[in-house]
Parts: sequence; structure tokens; C-alpha cells
Amino acid sequence: MSMLPRRVEFHEEGPREGFQMEKGTYPLDDRLALIDALAASGLRQVQCASFVSPRAVPQMADSPELFARLRKRPGTRYTGLWLNESGFERARACDNIDIDGKVVFYVTEPFSQRNNNCSVAENRERQLAWIDRYIALGIPFEQAYVVTAFGCNLGGPVPVSAVTDVVRWLVDACADRRIRFPAFYLADTMGWANPEEIKRRIGAVRELVPQARIGLHLHDTRGVGGANVYAAMQMGVDLFDSSVAGLGGCPFAGHKHGGAAGNICTEDMAFMCEEMGVDTGLDLEQLVEAARLAERIIGRPLNGRLMRSGTLAAMRC
Amino acid sequence: MSMLPRRVEFHEEGPREGFQMEKGTYPLDDRLALIDALAASGLRQVQCASFVSPRAVPQMADSPELFARLRKRPGTRYTGLWLNESGFERARACDNIDIDGKVVFYVTEPFSQRNNNCSVAENRERQLAWIDRYIALGIPFEQAYVVTAFGCNLGGPVPVSAVTDVVRWLVDACADRRIRFPAFYLADTMGWANPEEIKRRIGAVRELVPQARIGLHLHDTRGVGGANVYAAMQMGVDLFDSSVAGLGGCPFAGHKHGGAAGNICTEDMAFMCEEMGVDTGLDLEQLVEAARLAERIIGRPLNGRLMRSGTLAAMRC
Repeated sequence: MSMLPRRVEFHEEGPREGFQMEKGTYPLDDRLALIDALAASGLRQVQCASFVSPRAVPQMADSPELFARLRKRPGTRYTGLWLNESGFERARACDNIDIDGKVVFYVTEPFSQRNNNCSVAENRERQLAWIDRYIALGIPFEQAYVVTAFGCNLGGPVPVSAVTDVVRWLVDACADRRIRFPAFYLADTMGWANPEEIKRRIGAVRELVPQARIGLHLHDTRGVGGANVYAAMQMGVDLFDSSVAGLGGCPFAGHKHGGAAGNICTEDMAFMCEEMGVDTGLDLEQLVEAARLAERIIGRPLNGRLMRSGTLAAMRC
Repeated sequence: MSMLPRRVEFHEEGPREGFQMEKGTYPLDDRLALIDALAASGLRQVQCASFVSPRAVPQMADSPELFARLRKRPGTRYTGLWLNESGFERARACDNIDIDGKVVFYVTEPFSQRNNNCSVAENRERQLAWIDRYIALGIPFEQAYVVTAFGCNLGGPVPVSAVTDVVRWLVDACADRRIRFPAFYLADTMGWANPEEIKRRIGAVRELVPQARIGLHLHDTRGVGGANVYAAMQMGVDLFDSSVAGLGGCPFAGHKHGGAAGNICTEDMAFMCEEMGVDTGLDLEQLVEAARLAERIIGRPLNGRLMRSGTLAAMRC
């Protein structure tokens, strides 16, 4: 048997990733109901909405109103996503929002240029400015992401050294500022990861920062998401971003053969953990209800499996 | 890194599992085209059709004609499924069919009763008769399946000892007959398996029959199929039943929330293997084409992921 973590934490991204990716807009009441259903399952963090340009992403234009109307459950953090200062200021101005200090690093030039209009190195400097902004505002610097950490559709394969370079650079940046090294996330933004590569890259990061918590942001683009989660757990990883019902795929974004699959599915992965005796702190039945609600809101079949088949609880009695 | 097998073999079940489960019937030409597309990918075994009662499964009424019209590619075995003597005789009478001697064991009474109208013990005796029939006919006895080897919706949890009992019994039966112990398949018929349980049960079987080849027949009912494959590979398992595009779910069979997911998806799992440097002998691009053909024939979105996102080959150039 494997040495798995005793407890795994899932950070829910469905309400933001899911609705942002869809073409339509969805009633605020529906999105609030989904967020509440997710929090009710015991999720400790739910990313609720993004603060990006309403012209670029009209689905998220009402993010301040959404936060204003949240009824917060104790034990859950309700977070948002921003990509620039104006978004950050809009987020900070919200009632009810839990601001988490995070930065995002790139490892390929074409993706950095497309998403940021700047080079990988310039983006690093910008992230340094974010870290200093968080420090100045007394916001804990909690999360650092490396996107396309396993490979990039625009930039091709990503060597392990590109990831470890970011770690080393960030270790120095944190030391200079006498702050704690944050949770370090490898994001498989475009579905390049496989289980052995997960182990290899986590091992390489852990060697440099043995005390740091490592997280994974995985997409199930090619059907390998669940195996990647299991491989990471075998390396002791206990922190995963995920989306209810597997929300977050991009059904319209230029894929000739239909949409790319979304994030790993919260309830399917939580089921896998619980079946292996790994505690998630989550109510699986409630999560399944939330997934079915997500599907009713979106109005088309979503990727989650457990939401169709149900848990095994009833059949064990 | 893990010690994985150098090579993994997938036995394709899509043409039988897939179409049998669907409500409609599909033109013979389409099914023949799919079988040929699958064989062209390098699959060494394709289960093409079943020989069951045409009244119960009208989709498979034309199985003899299907086999008669096969254009066989060298290196591929074209197999069929039967459940009783009359089916076996219809299968044997076919042109082109590759008859593989196999038996199926049950481990829970309610499922045995429902599928066979007999007890677990009675079914064992019947399987003994099949083994003797194969011997008498000079058909190699190649495969033994244990269905619901991880748990049963009708019978509940299945103890490991229920599986190892079958192994012991079959070891004796083979010794009595001076025949080789066959490839031993654990079938997760109803999606109860998880990666750690996969390891536990394979370990228990291997302890009893260290030289035997172990196979897995897995369904991705709850989103854990890929992780189960990876866990099995870590135990050295190199033989999996699978279905192109994840065919084989039962979209109409009494699931309140839509169809249960089908078999593990051939091209997604082959992709995972190849990405980890494990040889499958398969042409992934050709498999993806076969999956897209399956989806066109069935006429609704299927579960496979790689068929939408594509392989990484083009992005590595």
C-alpha cells in the first residue's frame, strides 16, 4: 500500500472557472445557490468569481454584487480572482470577500506574452510587486502558482528546471522579505501532466523546499486527471484545486472536436480519497447535490461521474 | 519513480460493450468500419460482437453476418462473447472469429442469481464444464474473470477472500486437468474499485499465483478509472480491457441521473501509458480517429477526453 496523506484539502474553483468559461450568463441567484451548496459540503475555500474586465468576461460583471449577497458559512473562505491592480482594488472593495495573497508565474514566453503582454522575466518582477503590495497591506502571501508547469500548447515541453528556477527565485525573494515561503502550486493548465511526471516534478520542488506545502491545479484534458491526483497523493500532496462536476472546460474555445475537459472534478476526487480512507472533511452526498445543481444551471451534461452513479454509501448498508 | 511494466496491452471491448448497451441498432457497415479502424491502430484483440439471444439484445442479432464480412488484419484477434452453449455454438460456427476460451466467476449470490439463475457455487461447476468443453475441443483456456471483484451493487462489499477463494479453486481445477492457469481478470463491473484496493487485491492474487498474468476489466463509473489503471501498473499489471471513446456505459438503464459511465477509455489510457514511456504498440492518432468515428456512429457525445483535446505530438515538434 502507499503512504498517502491522512487528509486532503480541495479548493473549489467551479463557480469562477465554470461560469467564466461558458458563453451564456447565469442568474446571480443560481450562482449564489451553487456557492452555498458547495460551502455546505464542507469545502474550506470556494473561489466565487473573478474581477476581470466586464467587457472581456461579461459573465463576471456582477462579481461585487455576488459577494455582497453571499451568506457566509463559518469555516469556508470565499475568494476571488484578479489579474491586475484595478481588479484587485475592485475585489478588495467587496463585502464578504476573503482576500488571499497569490502570485502567478509563467515558464514559457509565448503564453506569458499572450496572457500578460510581457516576458517571463518581466512577469516575475510584476509578481514581486504583488508580494510587496500584499506585505504593505498586511495580506498574507499564501499561494504561488506556476502555470503550464508540465507543458504548454504555445511553448511546447517545459523542462523541470524551468519550474525549479521559479522555486529558487521565490525562495530568495521570500528570504529577502523575511516572509514565509507560500504554498507552491504546479498548474497543469493545458493537460500535459502524467502520473510519473507529477512525481518527478513534485520531487524536484520538494528537494528545494522540503517544508513548503505543495498544491496542484490539474485539468482532466486527456483523461489522466484522476491518476495524476493519485500520483501526487503518493508524494504526500494534500492540496488540490478542483471544480464541482468538472466545470471549467471550454466548450466553445476553438477545439475542433468539442470542448476541452475542465478541472479535475471535486466530488469524484473526494470520493476517491474517502474510498481510500483519506479524510477530505467533505459531505459527499451534499457535493453530489451541488454537482447536479451545477448541471441544472449550466443546462448541458457536465463531466462529473459520481453525480450520475452516486456514492457507494447506500449499497454498503 | 515507479516500476511500471515496459509494455501494456489493451483488449478492446467497444464494438461489443458499446453497441450492445445502446438502445438503437446501428448499421453493420458502420460497426465494421469501427472494428477496422480499431484494428488499424494496432490493437491485438477486438471483441466485435456477442452471441446472446436476439430477442434480449436485438443489436447483436447480426453477429454471424458481421464476422462473415470482417476483413481481418494480421496481428489482431477478432473475438466474440457468449453466455451459454447455444451462443457458443453460434460463435463457433462463424467465419473469421477467434475463439478464446474464457470463464466467468461470481462472488455475490444476488448478482449470480440475477445473471445466471444459479448460485455462486453452481456457476463454478458450470465454468468447470466450460473448461472441459474447451479442452475437448482443443481451444486454449486463456481467461478467467471474477466479476464484481471489488464490490457489487446487489450484494454489497466483496471481501478479498471471496476473490482469493476463486483463485485457489481454479488452481486446483487447472492442476487436476494438467492445464496452465489462465490470465486472471479482476472485473470492477460496477465501479467499486479504488487505487489502494486495486493494489491490495492484485497483491493477494499474485501471492497465490505469482506466475499468472493478471488482467483488469475496469469501468470508470465514478471517475476513478484512470487512477485504478495507474495503481495496477504500479503492481506490474500489463493487461486491461477497455473501450474506445469510453463506450459501454448504459445511458438508459435506470440511472436516475443519466447513464453510468462506461469502460475505461482505450485511447485515454493508451495516451497515459505512452506519456509515461510505457509502450502500448498502438497508434494514438489512429485510435483518436476511431474514437471520433464511434461518436459519429452513436450520435451523442461519448466520454473519451483525448478525442476532443488531441495528443501532444503536434505541440512537441
